[in-house]
Order: sequence, then C-alpha cells, then structure tokens
Amino acid sequence: MRCEVVAIGTELLLGQIIDTNSSWIGERLATVGIDSFYQTKVGDNHARIVGTLRQALERSEAVICCGGLGPTQDDITRDAIAEVMGVELEFHPEVAEHIRHIFESRGRQMPENNLRQAMVPAGASVIPEQPGTAPGLVCPVGEKVIYAVPGVPYEMHQMMETAILPDLTRRAGFSAVIRSRTLRTWGHSESKLAELLEPRIVELDRSGQATIAFLASGIEGLKVRITAKGADEAAAYAAIDAEEPHVRGLLGDTVFGVDGDTMESVVLEMLRARGLTLAVAEVTSGGIMATRLSALDPHGEVFRGGIVPTAGAVRTKLLGVPGELLGTFEAAKTLASAVRAAFGADIGLATTGQHDLGDISGAAQTYLGLDIEGTLDVERVRLPGDRERVRQFSVISVLNALRLRLAARAGG
Amino acid sequence: MRCEVVAIGTELLLGQIIDTNSSWIGERLATVGIDSFYQTKVGDNHARIVGTLRQALERSEAVICCGGLGPTQDDITRDAIAEVMGVELEFHPEVAEHIRHIFESRGRQMPENNLRQAMVPAGASVIPEQPGTAPGLVCPVGEKVIYAVPGVPYEMHQMMETAILPDLTRRAGFSAVIRSRTLRTWGHSESKLAELLEPRIVELDRSGQATIAFLASGIEGLKVRITAKGADEAAAYAAIDAEEPHVRGLLGDTVFGVDGDTMESVVLEMLRARGLTLAVAEVTSGGIMATRLSALDPHGEVFRGGIVPTAGAVRTKLLGVPGELLGTFEAAKTLASAVRAAFGADIGLATTGQHDLGDISGAAQTYLGLDIEGTLDVERVRLPGDRERVRQFSVISVLNALRLRLAARAGG
Repeated sequence: MRCEVVAIGTELLLGQIIDTNSSWIGERLATVGIDSFYQTKVGDNHARIVGTLRQALERSEAVICCGGLGPTQDDITRDAIAEVMGVELEFHPEVAEHIRHIFESRGRQMPENNLRQAMVPAGASVIPEQPGTAPGLVCPVGEKVIYAVPGVPYEMHQMMETAILPDLTRRAGFSAVIRSRTLRTWGHSESKLAELLEPRIVELDRSGQATIAFLASGIEGLKVRITAKGADEAAAYAAIDAEEPHVRGLLGDTVFGVDGDTMESVVLEMLRARGLTLAVAEVTSGGIMATRLSALDPHGEVFRGGIVPTAGAVRTKLLGVPGELLGTFEAAKTLASAVRAAFGADIGLATTGQHDLGDISGAAQTYLGLDIEGTLDVERVRLPGDRERVRQFSVISVLNALRLRLAARAGG
Repeated sequence: MRCEVVAIGTELLLGQIIDTNSSWIGERLATVGIDSFYQTKVGDNHARIVGTLRQALERSEAVICCGGLGPTQDDITRDAIAEVMGVELEFHPEVAEHIRHIFESRGRQMPENNLRQAMVPAGASVIPEQPGTAPGLVCPVGEKVIYAVPGVPYEMHQMMETAILPDLTRRAGFSAVIRSRTLRTWGHSESKLAELLEPRIVELDRSGQATIAFLASGIEGLKVRITAKGADEAAAYAAIDAEEPHVRGLLGDTVFGVDGDTMESVVLEMLRARGLTLAVAEVTSGGIMATRLSALDPHGEVFRGGIVPTAGAVRTKLLGVPGELLGTFEAAKTLASAVRAAFGADIGLATTGQHDLGDISGAAQTYLGLDIEGTLDVERVRLPGDRERVRQFSVISVLNALRLRLAARAGG
C-alpha cells in the first residue's frame, strides 16, 4: 500500500510557510506501515494540481492532499479533485449548515464565500470530524482514493487520526503494527557510526526481526532508530527490546538517551538522582547552556544558575579570577572552579577558548572546564564550523563530558 | 525561467526531519524572480530519484536537488544525476584533498567512506564554496541544468548565494532585476498591520512602482517586504527608497530594523553609538538574552555580560538582593538595578514574572525591568503562549522597551 502526499498552496512554494504537514503525515504513515515514496508541493494552479494528483494516483493507491479547501478564489482543491474524478461539484446543505453553525457559535455571521466550502465532488464523502469550516473529503477514484484535508494542522491531525489512517489500514488489509525507538548518540562521526552498525544491519536484513536506520541530527548528534513490526504493539516493542542491547553493545557510551531525551535532560536527571547541583560560566557559549538547562529546570532544583562573564572586570568582580584569564586551558579550569564556588554548587562547568580571544580559524581550540565536587578537569577540543556552531557544540560537548564522568564514577 | 526543487532523503518522507531547505530555496528563487512550480521530496532510491529528476527537467529549465551527498551508502544523489546525464562518476583528487584537509583541521583522520564524496559526474563542475565535506555540483543536461547541494542548511545557503542564484539569473538572461527590502516590525498584530497597510497596497496595485507584502515571523515580529523591479539594481533600489517612507509613515516606531537586522543587533548598535554598556539578569528568559547579545558582541564592547540567577542564594550572594524577591514588579526593578551595579554597566535589564513563581496560566504577568543610567522603569506585560514562548517573548519585549526609550531620549 503506497500513499503519496500532495501539499497545495503557492505560499508553500514561495517559502512564506514551511510545509510541516507533509512531514507529520509522512511520520504517521510510516508508523502504521504505509509506504510514502513521494511528497509534492504544488501551487494554487488548476492544471498543475490536476496533473500532480493524476501522476500520484498512477504511482500510488492513495493520495492525501492538504490545503486549498478554504473559502477564497485561491482554494481550488475541490475543483481539481472533481476533474480528476470526472464528476461535478455538488452542494451539500448539511455541510453548509455546519459551517454556518461554526460562525454563529463565535457570534459572527457566515460570509457568503464560505458556501464554496460546502461544494463536494459527486461520489465523494465528507469526513465526519470537522473542527473548522473546511470539510475533509474521501474521494474514490476507481479502486484508488484521494483524501483531501485542510492545511490547518490541528484540523488535519484530527481527520488523519479519526478517519484517514483507519481507512488506509483497512484498505491495506493490515493486521501488523510497526513501532520504533530512537537511540540518541554523541561522539561518533556519521561514517564511523555507519562502519560500526554495518555488520548488524546486514545481519538484520537476513533475519528481519527489526531494522536499524541512522540519521544526523545537526549539533545534537546522530540518531539510531530501531524499527520492528509485530502482530500488536506489545509484540513490536518486544522485538525492539530484543534488538536494543545489540545496538547499544556496538555503540557503547556514545548512547546518551532515548527518543525525546536531550543531552541536558539526561544530565539534569543524572544530577537529580545523585542530589548534585550545577552552575555554569559561559564565555564561548555565551548563555546557550543556561538557556537549555533553565528550560528544563526553571526553579533551580539542580541548575543553580549561570553567568556570562564577557567583560574582564566582571570575571574579576563576580568570580574572583584575573580579568585577563581567558581562552586558555588554565582559564577553563579556573572559571569552572570559580563559578562552582560563587554559585555554591556541587559542580561547575566552563566554556572558553581561542575563539574568545578573536581566533575564528578552524584551528582554534575550545577548552571545557569541569569542577566536579573539587575534582578539576579540562577537555581540549577543536570544534567544527563557524563561531555560532562552535558556541553550540561547546555546550553539548561539555555536558557530554560531565555525563561520561558521572557515569564512570557511578560504575567505579 | 522555471526551477524546481527536489529534496532527497528517506528521512524527509518519514517525517524524521522537516524539509526547511525547499522553503528557503523557494523564497530565494521568488526574490530573484525565478518561478518554482513544483517541489518534490523523494527517498534514497535510485530509480525514483532518477525518475523525479527527469520529470523535473521536462517541466523546468533548472533543478536544485538538495541532500544525499553524504559519505554513506544511502547517499546516492551523485549516481542518480550521473545516470540522468548519461555519464560516469569521476574521482576528483582535489575534492578528496579538501575533504581530507577538513578532517585534519579538526584533528581527525578521514574515514575511507568520505572518498565517495569526491566522485563527480563527468562534465559536472564543483561549486568553489565548500564549507563541509560535501561538494556542491553544477551538472549540465543539454541546455538545462541540475544543481546538487548538501542538505546541511548553512552549507546549502552559502552555495546558493555564491554560485547557484548568480548562475540561474545569468541563464535566465534577466535584464530586469527584482530587489526587495524587508522592514522588521514589533508591536502590531497581523490584523492591525493589514488594516494599516491595506490602503497603500491598493494604491500600489494601481500605480505599480513597488509592491508590499507582509508575513509573520514567529516571535521575531512581523516583516513588511517592499519589492520593486528595475532595469538594474540601482533602479530597483531607487523605487524601494521612494516607497519606504510611505510604509514607515504608516507603521511608525514599530519598525525596528531592516533586512538582516534583529532586535539585538539594533539595540547593540544604538548603545555602541551612544557609548553605553549593558548587563542583563534573566530569570524568566534564563539565558536567551545573553545568548543573543553575546552572539553579536563576543568581546563585550557593549554587552558586559549576563547572569541567570536561578537559585535565591545566588541572587543574594552575587546581586545583593533578597533571595525571595522574584516574579514581581519590585523584583524586576531591583534586579535591573542590581545587575547594572554588579556588572559595572550603564544599563541593566531584567526579566522576571509570575511564571518564575510557577504560574504557567495564560494570565501570568511578566515584568521587564530597565535601569538606564539610574532611571528605573518596569513594563508589565502578559505574554502569549507556553513557557518557552514566554521566555522568548520576554527577551524581544525588554529589548524593544530599551530601544524605544533610547530613541525617545535622543529625540528629546
């Protein structure tokens, strides 16, 4: 069973709106086990919409088209689908009534334009859930089907969950469910990860209990996804549970979390479990680490706070370190220790490096200082990218350094 | 001249990554006056990529394909383009050397896999700018062309600006140039802005010297774009220059900047021009303001630094304020004053509010404290959205409050 996604709207092509709907639909289709090989964006042009829908129906058994169901002259999805079906549009009085009711419940009168939204291709049915003024449509084309949903995300989501996904899986005759789990990793390059996982991927291709895929996630590291199919959810997760130790065995301590975990959520959780508090001095990262930590720990149970001591006099006055101490190994050590003392925390972290001294070449070193209950340590790293990326990388790098030290201590 | 965009990667179809590249490219194409009627996402499948590229070349004179240029087995864009061109891949030693150099400059050895990235379709040329390991490619197909760029946004952006857009406009033989200028605004709702601009938009529709469009830009306010066509760049900008005062007249002091300006770049520039320095205490915003300011002023010429004083004891010890002072009008005033004194700056800003006390309802107030050379002031605002949006909004709001006060002072 293949299902394509067609997103309709000139504003999508012009980049005025980012098409997040197709991604969301693609993710949901993958989760229930329906292949989606193409996703297309097309503008508000009758001939091009018709051509795109026809081609999609040639390649796939189902098409979900998103957008162009509004009340204005630009909204021509209904007309295009009618042409593909070879039928006329029909007025559905009960849809018109529903739209009128929505306006009235907001204390407003329905503009006449909105009656366009009650025009439905002959032979199509209206999706019962209709949170907004645009009805969703199920439009049979021979044995195949076009679903039309509005571009408003929450309206589209409701129609997908209650009507379209159930209809698709019924059409596909599915009995199996597909589930996946993502391992978050930090520390390997993409090619190194490929090399480590390659043998296992080949093995799984033969045995077929689960599959492994990995993908880059920008400065947040690489994700490794384990996917399995089962008769029900429990069976799918059992296959994932059986596979996970193999993958973790290959990746070692580069795995920092699962699914929605982030580096900071994992570190905060480790600190919370150990009853430890944290403070940070950010020269290189300039506040990024505090931003990420404070987002998850607003009341400072673990994260006591941070300082961005840009001016030398600030470093002297508030942290008691020499103002000229900056961008060196020594500076990272001293700042980590000083922020720990000044903030009364168990652990102090610091980011500083040659970028802070004005060296923005690729050769510039970054120094990550850690003071863990009085044990001082500095990691020296050369981070890739422009200054903004170095700032970002310095944060995840120093948090990862802390994570590994905490884990090693627990094991020791 | 028509140019399609093809985004390549199974992870895009699965919704693991949202395709923001196509939107960005679409926006840039529109700005330089090149039509883009279709944007397609296709997975890492040779036959489907080849078919998609062939169809795109039938409909359009140029295709930009994005992604699939990495070092792994999944990265097959090079091979697919070679098939469309009817040529073989050739090894480019100078590209390999460049990739090796990138690894070495990070103190790492190049994995053998990365040599795949030095394979280039015969007859294609390599885009000189190559910020990462993936080279961008210009691949002629008869009179038409396929451009291949990596999916990493900042790498793609560089190649688009320096090589692809100039090549496209040259191919299009444009005699007229289209230029635009974006006014950044903060403070009006979208409907208020529409109301203010409507008469002028109608007027321009008749006279046609320039056009006005506006678009929401999330927490960064609303953008108003003035676009004009001219025989050359100077003529286009002259038409924009003539229109800009009309638009500014309608929008008043909600216009904070132009094009690439941000609220923090504008505020930093105003402070620099006046010889004033700044320090910030961020409870609500938790480091976001320091992050934004430090990105633009790394050496603290204006921005002396910031503090995220999450724990009460930290507020007492480092800022000399009572630990329990939080989330109130009084707290904002006191923190602004205290951070100004502690950091030895001319101006202190502070964010705190009822969110910091655990009230995450829509009714929660945020207090923005300003101490401008000893003149104390607090703005009380009710910011929309969840906690993360409130954090973000508090920053742009307090910076805007400072901007308006500095501007008023200069005028008075």
